Amino acid sequence: MVREKLNGRSRVIIEAASPQVDGGAFPAKRVAGDVVIAEADIFADGHDLISAVVRHRHENETDWRDVRMRALVNDRWRAEFPVEELGFHVFTIEAWIDHFLTWHRDLNKRVDGGAADDELRVQLQIGLQYIQSAAARANSRDQRKFEPYLASLKSNDAINDIIDDLQSEDLLALMWRNAERKFLTRYPLELKIEVDRPKAAYSTWYELFPRSTASQEGRHGTFADVERQLPRIVRMGFDVLYLPPIHPVGIKFRKGKNNTVNAEPADVGSPWAIGSSEGGHKATHPQLGTIDDFARLVTKAKEQGIEVAMDIAFQASPDHPYVKEHPAWFLMRPDGTIQYAENPPKKYQDIYPFHFESEEWEPLWDELRDVFAFWIGKGVRVFRVDNPHTKPLPFWEWCIRDLKREWPDLIFLAEAFTRPKIMYRLAKAGFTQSYTYFAWRHTKQELTEYFEELSKPPVSDFFRPNVWPNTPDILTEFLQYGGRGAFAMRLILAATLASSYGIYGPPFERYIGSAIKHGSEEYLDSEKYQIRHWPQTEDDLTELIALVNRIRRENPALQQNATLKFHETDNDQVLCYSKSYGDNVIVTVVNLDPHNAHSAWIELDLDALSLDPLRNYQVHDLLSGARHSWHGPRNFIKLDPNVVPAHIFRIRRKVRTERDFEYFL
Amino acid sequence: MVREKLNGRSRVIIEAASPQVDGGAFPAKRVAGDVVIAEADIFADGHDLISAVVRHRHENETDWRDVRMRALVNDRWRAEFPVEELGFHVFTIEAWIDHFLTWHRDLNKRVDGGAADDELRVQLQIGLQYIQSAAARANSRDQRKFEPYLASLKSNDAINDIIDDLQSEDLLALMWRNAERKFLTRYPLELKIEVDRPKAAYSTWYELFPRSTASQEGRHGTFADVERQLPRIVRMGFDVLYLPPIHPVGIKFRKGKNNTVNAEPADVGSPWAIGSSEGGHKATHPQLGTIDDFARLVTKAKEQGIEVAMDIAFQASPDHPYVKEHPAWFLMRPDGTIQYAENPPKKYQDIYPFHFESEEWEPLWDELRDVFAFWIGKGVRVFRVDNPHTKPLPFWEWCIRDLKREWPDLIFLAEAFTRPKIMYRLAKAGFTQSYTYFAWRHTKQELTEYFEELSKPPVSDFFRPNVWPNTPDILTEFLQYGGRGAFAMRLILAATLASSYGIYGPPFERYIGSAIKHGSEEYLDSEKYQIRHWPQTEDDLTELIALVNRIRRENPALQQNATLKFHETDNDQVLCYSKSYGDNVIVTVVNLDPHNAHSAWIELDLDALSLDPLRNYQVHDLLSGARHSWHGPRNFIKLDPNVVPAHIFRIRRKVRTERDFEYFL
Repeated sequence: MVREKLNGRSRVIIEAASPQVDGGAFPAKRVAGDVVIAEADIFADGHDLISAVVRHRHENETDWRDVRMRALVNDRWRAEFPVEELGFHVFTIEAWIDHFLTWHRDLNKRVDGGAADDELRVQLQIGLQYIQSAAARANSRDQRKFEPYLASLKSNDAINDIIDDLQSEDLLALMWRNAERKFLTRYPLELKIEVDRPKAAYSTWYELFPRSTASQEGRHGTFADVERQLPRIVRMGFDVLYLPPIHPVGIKFRKGKNNTVNAEPADVGSPWAIGSSEGGHKATHPQLGTIDDFARLVTKAKEQGIEVAMDIAFQASPDHPYVKEHPAWFLMRPDGTIQYAENPPKKYQDIYPFHFESEEWEPLWDELRDVFAFWIGKGVRVFRVDNPHTKPLPFWEWCIRDLKREWPDLIFLAEAFTRPKIMYRLAKAGFTQSYTYFAWRHTKQELTEYFEELSKPPVSDFFRPNVWPNTPDILTEFLQYGGRGAFAMRLILAATLASSYGIYGPPFERYIGSAIKHGSEEYLDSEKYQIRHWPQTEDDLTELIALVNRIRRENPALQQNATLKFHETDNDQVLCYSKSYGDNVIVTVVNLDPHNAHSAWIELDLDALSLDPLRNYQVHDLLSGARHSWHGPRNFIKLDPNVVPAHIFRIRRKVRTERDFEYFL
Repeated sequence: MVREKLNGRSRVIIEAASPQVDGGAFPAKRVAGDVVIAEADIFADGHDLISAVVRHRHENETDWRDVRMRALVNDRWRAEFPVEELGFHVFTIEAWIDHFLTWHRDLNKRVDGGAADDELRVQLQIGLQYIQSAAARANSRDQRKFEPYLASLKSNDAINDIIDDLQSEDLLALMWRNAERKFLTRYPLELKIEVDRPKAAYSTWYELFPRSTASQEGRHGTFADVERQLPRIVRMGFDVLYLPPIHPVGIKFRKGKNNTVNAEPADVGSPWAIGSSEGGHKATHPQLGTIDDFARLVTKAKEQGIEVAMDIAFQASPDHPYVKEHPAWFLMRPDGTIQYAENPPKKYQDIYPFHFESEEWEPLWDELRDVFAFWIGKGVRVFRVDNPHTKPLPFWEWCIRDLKREWPDLIFLAEAFTRPKIMYRLAKAGFTQSYTYFAWRHTKQELTEYFEELSKPPVSDFFRPNVWPNTPDILTEFLQYGGRGAFAMRLILAATLASSYGIYGPPFERYIGSAIKHGSEEYLDSEKYQIRHWPQTEDDLTELIALVNRIRRENPALQQNATLKFHETDNDQVLCYSKSYGDNVIVTVVNLDPHNAHSAWIELDLDALSLDPLRNYQVHDLLSGARHSWHGPRNFIKLDPNVVPAHIFRIRRKVRTERDFEYFL
């Protein structure tokens, strides 16, 4: 370090500003309406007082807005600012030795310590210099306000009277507004906050295969059929309808029912084997309908309060038009054939991966970005991206940022079931939401550890979990053998542990647990390879789903994850956790055993819930409607999975007692 | 982000490299002979194999040295490299998709999976391309070594024979040496390692006041008197002799005995009130001797294996020559007087602090740096800096770095008893060692939490604790009332918990606990304000001190902190911890109660100590000389503070049993 580069008189140090992701390399994520809590360690040599501000602006603005920071404990400082506009906000921190404040504090200490008049006179001379200097910087309005203080300091009034005048809060405010910020220190980074729309943080997803939505068995479903399903799905409380790929399906090496290698002529193939002579990623499968039909579905859904999420899977069937039009986008082998997807010795000959190390990688990037742009043009704003971890991370970082610059309301859900650091990096690279390991977390310890990791910084600053009890690829052993109770329990866990969750709906509603074979998580007769028909059934889970989603909608505590807190229970099969948002406090208690009833003493952390240990509080079970009056931390619960595996209690902090009656006051 | 700035085909991601202090803003500290363990998270999209290297060099070198990294678990990678030369080393990380390795792994998977010959032939063509490309990059020696592999691949030999040839480790080594590193990713930071000499990490300090070293009571001690003390101090096992300031002492506002405001004519004043008409920071107090006398002491000490540490206190008495020569270095008040040190309403009129916001701050910085350089010129290499937290942090960062560029063997100990973040920042700014809160940590929980914080990253990467049970400013209540046992116990704790420790010797040896008054940590008749005489006494702690320091010298486990590990005990008054270095394992057990004997079951973490739970191990108490044979984790101990308050066990991992006899094998 060269001294010339230092401002050696900038004595204040600013460290560890937050929120901060990887040293500022990535933005922290928030949604419109959030209040950003910005903090830093701020200190200096000696005993002088410090003043500090957070400076923030939307990246499209040029002027900074300053918010004064306040000291917490242990040299940690904080300020808060709301974010409304979508896109990137930036903030940094400035701090300086506040000689006026230091002088002001010390003046009062001198007075309290019985300082002699001549000492105080010298001090008033020093103070006069500070105030004159501030007045000289002030605008004319403030200058007028400074005048009485300057007059007092220059007067021959009694010292005590002058010092009394200096205690004015107005003077302190004037001095703050006109602070010199001499030798200020600026935090070396400008940190980014990416502000998404609220649905990025709170969303409820429903997945179905459009081709399975026909009213009569045997017919290929259409976008119009999906349209007819919308009211039912909206009634259940979902706000995103996610459709697997809607493009033409490849013919060469098409997979048959139950993933057999040789398809029968009537087999419809996997929607993820994208592309045929009928088109590729910018076309619709003719049997589903036209692009206009699809755009109409998107519009109709939006009118009913639900958005259509498209599945974007960047891979091609051997029949995809790209293969002929852009052979350089695929890896050619020395024998002149194109490299199909492999995980030796397994072969996926129906899929050609893109060759991202191609000399023509830039046109390839442009085209893939244009696939999104094309569907955005049809009204889509939510995308579920298939296997993003098999495409380069720098591509995603560029692609998502580039699209969101134009359409900041886009939402991208990363379907990456891979190693943790890759999942996290995809989120840093720009994915709005991410699939998680939730489907495979079952025990109290697993759920507690995982959701504590997900709900706290650093992870919660960049990774937004979207938890799914099932998907077309994942029918867990737990669901295969747990029966109705297991589905109900996993639904409630998903919906209350995470502010975003989803279900692969038709088989979930019907608690279908049939796998293709023991030890596999693949559905028997999976919709991935064939059309299914889903007639109305009795005693399905739709009412419970609708109730749980209504509880989510009515309780803002369940629409965020930051306040998630686990509470002790004395039974390993009983999980208890709370979320709160202002006065809205939800305590969920779940029996994790899908087969047997369990009871437990739960031990609520009353402090964390801001509950008075000396007063009763009301718990209102939003699932059963029952209300109880509880007192203190320890309370008894019993849950039978064959009835309902959980309580979702809303806590009322104040319960009227006779002490509240007027004659008692 | 603009795509043009990206190399979009660099698919590998490198994150969270370590050691790393504050995003690379500061170096991690090591000493010569250490092995640096460099790690990072390294991953990419898809299933391709990655190769990675740590590149490192001394900052004076231009060429990087590469060390291949190996994958640990969860995408964490590691390489190690030794550091010998003092000064700054830098390292960074490079990683790339290793297409050859990926192909090689997949070829074997194909073979195992029973791939058809025509498939394998295509694969061999691909492999030939990789190897030809590497051979083209190779030097002529390596090119010759490539030849047989190329010949095999081009031959008409049986496929199995060709594939057998490809399994050669030599081929893998050749390919590694000539790897293309195509589209490599470089970690965005070059991280620094500051390498100090070993004494920075392991040192044993003894403090005395030179003016109290005269052989007859009443005479002012001299440097020659200190010289006569050296053999005794060296025999006790100390390797740093720290002297409070040796400069002329100010007269104006001089403090009298026991910190009284008005000194008697005979009072000698505080050595920290530096400067008089006889000189300032570059002079010696005439009664101690000349600069040459001092230089002679420094040399004589070095010859006996102990270094003299000077105390540098950047402040001036009102009589200091600087006050007249450089009035701009002090803050002038409106009444024309110089601002003395204050903490209102307390006044320290015998001390003028430097005014670091002066317009003449640059000459001030230069002069202060020159104070160090002056004494370095007299042979000093170790400095204890008084109250560095009352001087600007940017000054220290510049001053220490600037001095160490010329003299990389310098050691600076920061005497900053202030808030934790400031203490840590001083260490980041360049201080080699730091005083700690050890003197005020007494309970099992306090000691465990504090030393766990100090011995692990991030703190251990930049902060080297030097722990002192007492100093001339700190006679803790614990020592005031604990008696001999308390001193012995705090000595052993300091010497075994931290690789660097020190004592303010004369009163410590004599376990003097007399404070000036109840509730104060000031010594009665403190040497800070008067000359004391320390005649030889009976039953002092010198033998215990010598023994403890010999144990430290003979056991490398105690010369570092990184392996510190606390073990469970079932008595809150009994603390148990271990340190290990290779085969050298030390387990210390301390009775924290200075008054009563305590017994406890200790539960050793055998795994952490690499002890076989099925075999006996020997514990050898290096304090008492006793040896015991222990088995398993749980063992019983009993410690009486009136005898000796601790065990310092050396663990012998292998104890011969009959199973070790030859006839048993």
